[in-house]
Amino acid sequence: MKNNIGKRGFASDNNAGVHPEILKEMISVNVGHVTGYGSDICTERALSIFKEQFGSSTEVFFVFTGTAANVLGLSAITRSWNSIITASTAHIEQDECGAPEKFIGCKVLTVDTPDGKVTTDLIEKHMHGFDFEHHAQPKVISITQVTEMGTVYTVQEIKRIADYAHSRGLLLHMDGARLANAAVSLNVSFREMTTDAGVDVLSFGGTKNGLMAGEAICFLSQGHSQYFKYIRKQGMQLASKMRFISAQYIAYFHNDLWKRCASHSNAMATVLADELRKLPGINITQSVQSNGIFVVIPREVAERVMQKYFFYPWNEKTSEYRLMTSWDTTEEDIEGFISLLKEEL
Amino acid sequence: MKNNIGKRGFASDNNAGVHPEILKEMISVNVGHVTGYGSDICTERALSIFKEQFGSSTEVFFVFTGTAANVLGLSAITRSWNSIITASTAHIEQDECGAPEKFIGCKVLTVDTPDGKVTTDLIEKHMHGFDFEHHAQPKVISITQVTEMGTVYTVQEIKRIADYAHSRGLLLHMDGARLANAAVSLNVSFREMTTDAGVDVLSFGGTKNGLMAGEAICFLSQGHSQYFKYIRKQGMQLASKMRFISAQYIAYFHNDLWKRCASHSNAMATVLADELRKLPGINITQSVQSNGIFVVIPREVAERVMQKYFFYPWNEKTSEYRLMTSWDTTEEDIEGFISLLKEEL
Amino acid sequence: MKNNIGKRGFASDNNAGVHPEILKEMISVNVGHVTGYGSDICTERALSIFKEQFGSSTEVFFVFTGTAANVLGLSAITRSWNSIITASTAHIEQDECGAPEKFIGCKVLTVDTPDGKVTTDLIEKHMHGFDFEHHAQPKVISITQVTEMGTVYTVQEIKRIADYAHSRGLLLHMDGARLANAAVSLNVSFREMTTDAGVDVLSFGGTKNGLMAGEAICFLSQGHSQYFKYIRKQGMQLASKMRFISAQYIAYFHNDLWKRCASHSNAMATVLADELRKLPGINITQSVQSNGIFVVIPREVAERVMQKYFFYPWNEKTSEYRLMTSWDTTEEDIEGFISLLKEEL
Amino acid sequence: MKNNIGKRGFASDNNAGVHPEILKEMISVNVGHVTGYGSDICTERALSIFKEQFGSSTEVFFVFTGTAANVLGLSAITRSWNSIITASTAHIEQDECGAPEKFIGCKVLTVDTPDGKVTTDLIEKHMHGFDFEHHAQPKVISITQVTEMGTVYTVQEIKRIADYAHSRGLLLHMDGARLANAAVSLNVSFREMTTDAGVDVLSFGGTKNGLMAGEAICFLSQGHSQYFKYIRKQGMQLASKMRFISAQYIAYFHNDLWKRCASHSNAMATVLADELRKLPGINITQSVQSNGIFVVIPREVAERVMQKYFFYPWNEKTSEYRLMTSWDTTEEDIEGFISLLKEEL
Repeated sequence: MKNNIGKRGFASDNNAGVHPEILKEMISVNVGHVTGYGSDICTERALSIFKEQFGSSTEVFFVFTGTAANVLGLSAITRSWNSIITASTAHIEQDECGAPEKFIGCKVLTVDTPDGKVTTDLIEKHMHGFDFEHHAQPKVISITQVTEMGTVYTVQEIKRIADYAHSRGLLLHMDGARLANAAVSLNVSFREMTTDAGVDVLSFGGTKNGLMAGEAICFLSQGHSQYFKYIRKQGMQLASKMRFISAQYIAYFHNDLWKRCASHSNAMATVLADELRKLPGINITQSVQSNGIFVVIPREVAERVMQKYFFYPWNEKTSEYRLMTSWDTTEEDIEGFISLLKEEL
Repeated sequence: MKNNIGKRGFASDNNAGVHPEILKEMISVNVGHVTGYGSDICTERALSIFKEQFGSSTEVFFVFTGTAANVLGLSAITRSWNSIITASTAHIEQDECGAPEKFIGCKVLTVDTPDGKVTTDLIEKHMHGFDFEHHAQPKVISITQVTEMGTVYTVQEIKRIADYAHSRGLLLHMDGARLANAAVSLNVSFREMTTDAGVDVLSFGGTKNGLMAGEAICFLSQGHSQYFKYIRKQGMQLASKMRFISAQYIAYFHNDLWKRCASHSNAMATVLADELRKLPGINITQSVQSNGIFVVIPREVAERVMQKYFFYPWNEKTSEYRLMTSWDTTEEDIEGFISLLKEEL
Repeated sequence: MKNNIGKRGFASDNNAGVHPEILKEMISVNVGHVTGYGSDICTERALSIFKEQFGSSTEVFFVFTGTAANVLGLSAITRSWNSIITASTAHIEQDECGAPEKFIGCKVLTVDTPDGKVTTDLIEKHMHGFDFEHHAQPKVISITQVTEMGTVYTVQEIKRIADYAHSRGLLLHMDGARLANAAVSLNVSFREMTTDAGVDVLSFGGTKNGLMAGEAICFLSQGHSQYFKYIRKQGMQLASKMRFISAQYIAYFHNDLWKRCASHSNAMATVLADELRKLPGINITQSVQSNGIFVVIPREVAERVMQKYFFYPWNEKTSEYRLMTSWDTTEEDIEGFISLLKEEL
Repeated sequence: MKNNIGKRGFASDNNAGVHPEILKEMISVNVGHVTGYGSDICTERALSIFKEQFGSSTEVFFVFTGTAANVLGLSAITRSWNSIITASTAHIEQDECGAPEKFIGCKVLTVDTPDGKVTTDLIEKHMHGFDFEHHAQPKVISITQVTEMGTVYTVQEIKRIADYAHSRGLLLHMDGARLANAAVSLNVSFREMTTDAGVDVLSFGGTKNGLMAGEAICFLSQGHSQYFKYIRKQGMQLASKMRFISAQYIAYFHNDLWKRCASHSNAMATVLADELRKLPGINITQSVQSNGIFVVIPREVAERVMQKYFFYPWNEKTSEYRLMTSWDTTEEDIEGFISLLKEEL
């Protein structure tokens, strides 16, 4: 597995490298000195692009990782005596080693979902104990778009959750680690799906769609970012050479690179899913709406195939696996994979 | 200030860009897919280089920022009821917005020093209350090499502090944000100044000496890194595309790039200091042992000069300023700066 | 409600006052000066009684509240990257305002149960991700004895969970806020149900059974209390006039006061349940095994009755209420309550 | 030392027991059931007394310990990126095992003082870095009244610090563990020294002046207590049987019991100091303004005397000791102590 440099598999979209246009922009800003920590024209420009994309009152802060984007963004709108309600499959619940609890000191409450998408009906069970000091106070609903199950909330679904949250005094956080894939899937702008739908705080990810490292915390509704510069610094996420994160985002939005990358990876997932559906003994378990495919494959088959095309088990008990396509997945990769899979079946 | 792209000043070594050899290596690893989060051959190679440099039992973990390196490294050897003793000028005390207290929950105790260097005599005042539950238990002495005042601990001084720490059941942490400049200044290897001198945990910095972003937490003595992978992840510092940090370190150690960069910036500081000493009304306040110069300049003069060559005030009351040279500072930069300074004096 | 001083209801066993024997002992130790913070003979004696009750290697620390007992006890055996698995009805999940997350920084994972009792089958779903740095590491199973639903784990059930926990490298914590009621219910000693059954850390409560304020954290298995004196002090729970907590426990164990109190309140619950079962339209929803009764009562009826005999709604949607008896509940209280209830039905 | 029950020494005012009037009131409220957690008429009455004492907009919350009063009160007005400035001798710095850092996650900055009293001149050195995200933001000045050195701030001194704090956007916290002794010393009301002098948040202590356990956090200026009920609960300091804390305060204020106790202990300190001044080789090092005396005694002498009358060393290097008188110190205690001391000298 360690020797697979150069070999594309279906393990994760973060196993891919950096898109050449991103790298080129990073190289282009490597000229002379600029003030550190974000007071440079490159960062100024990147931040202004975010305002164009999400609305002019959007406040944006760059950090290094998706976990940091989620935790610090949530930290700005949550106190330790609050609770955050999310899907039991959410990244903040399963994949961040308890970082929200550690940094915020609050509860994360979960609801089980069939497809990674929370609904107001599901959330309802946690909506009690308001004003009762013994009980952690519900404050944020956090949804992931694209969900960890590869599914996509419609704009209408997001609006419904946002309205529900706001009507009860809660805020809506969106983990947008794969937001570009959702925008492409729904054929809407970022803004329609976020600011206009009522999302208050957004983790905007790029690393899974061609960036090197760098996520953006976007405060879409007002009044939440007053102390955020301190939160970011104290959260150990203030980049000294910020221009190299900013440059990535300049390139990401230039000529809709984000859309080109996400369209490609989504399309590759569709191709892959179509091929998989033709195979006997293979069962796709979730609707394929982005660049992730969840599929049951006989264990011994899967284990032989993953020697060559790496991918991860999702549920060892049910022999379910996750396949992710990337901005750089090729049709040849898929053909090779399918061909090997057929062979092994 | 925001428009000074391309213009080199003396504000900070982190205002410089990325050394071309670093960038070249980063580009070279941008091929195909590799497993994320550090399970790749590039990271494997980078880690093995650290073992060569610091000793074969050294355990190394990459993070994004110097603050993270300090806080997470300290976190591995400190519990919330402990105290960390350091100089009042230390980065962990002055410049990290309380990140150690936030993440570890412990006390940071300080000693005033004339030159940024703690001594065992100074530390002694905090060495009490052992085993007394009312009092935070001293656990770590943290020193910065090069200090925030531009001075350098000798190997003998480090050994003395390490022995003192160990004899009282404490550990020695070193903030090595500018460790390369110290190694060049002392003409010793990294290992002589750290592992062999008794340093237990080291924050090894590269960003101030030509890297893009990426610091290394080095566990030099054994028994401290068992849970560190969780600390790093929960600390929001686990890079998904780790190869791009690792590549920077591969280049950094290749043909002693670190030494070439640090030698250059130290030499430039010497040149700059020599020129400054010739000027009337200018007073260098600290021994120039690395790439930082602390200097008193009449305020109005300084403020006019910094319009063109940016640098920071250190102490507004005494009109003391800090000048930092970088891996890319040129003799022309110094000539231009000195010439302007003369003019304004 | 505020005017009901002197009036006994069925709201909670902590609405009762202090047993006279407890108060008498507190008065008796109010003589002259003793060293503060627990270095007094009264505390020495109290701690030795705990060793008699739970085993000679038991280490005990007093704190003020049940929440503190749970959180600090768990804190001693959990790091921030760990998770604690418990019932979704558990006090640490529902009723401590997120104190475990705040103080420990770890995740609390829950399982839904029909009766407040976790089983190894239910827990199993959280037993994954071991050694995987992205996932919080399961470390503790926490059970409540008596459960928040008034049910009681058998000794055998506790042993099974303890064995399961230990076989997977986890520890077993018991919230024993009503441990006396469980001991009486099972007719076993404290030790049989805890130390001998494999419980590692116990929150031993007395306040709900006649004490004024004071809970005991008992480290039953070894190796967990080394730093606990610092945890307690930093946790703001070190009593300066400790003798007044210790005195309560001396009285509590004297002539088995705990057993007399708990036997009485359990017996009163049995009487109350028997009477309730005779009433039409009243439905007891949980097995009555201690001093708590969960019962569905028509809402309007309940609301009228609770004007006189206060008790709390448990589930407003299903019109389920919780009735608690206390060490001082009388048969007249029950007769009066039942008689009023009949009237209102 | 453990066997000295009944024997009064000069170790600490918290080594004394509970004043009989306090205990009597506690006994008197031990009647029947009342709603837990503070919703009872006894607590209602106690809170209204505080409003009489400190002003009608005062919001008060009871907790168990002085450390909790300090930490939770500070927590209400401080975020993790703030700093709290205090004397290096302050209880929150020296004697709380890092509880403020653990619970709040903020920095505690100190100034050295000759007498435990901070001044605006001393504080000034920490008043920088405002609005600069790298630096923890100064937010609170915390003073102790009576100081840990037995000295007392005048009302004018408190006003000066309060004005200074407010003019720079900071708040003033007072640790009033021995506030009664200060009020007696200055011959002013509590209110003149606190609310009217500009104190924003007060830890009001009673345990060192005759209570059993119970401190009051008083929000004197408005806008700080909105979420405090959650902070107290999450801080593990919400008493279920609250009436027994409230009763203590009802008695404490009844017929100025607080004043009678504090006047007595202050007077005893004066007597003791007068006697000590007559002895050769004994040197009182701080002004005796309350119930604490700091005194240099030859070490061997001190060690022999403390076998019989226990007291604590303050500074082992200078052979300085602390003597505390209490509400129950008698003239005979002093005579016996002085007589023994003379003998040993």
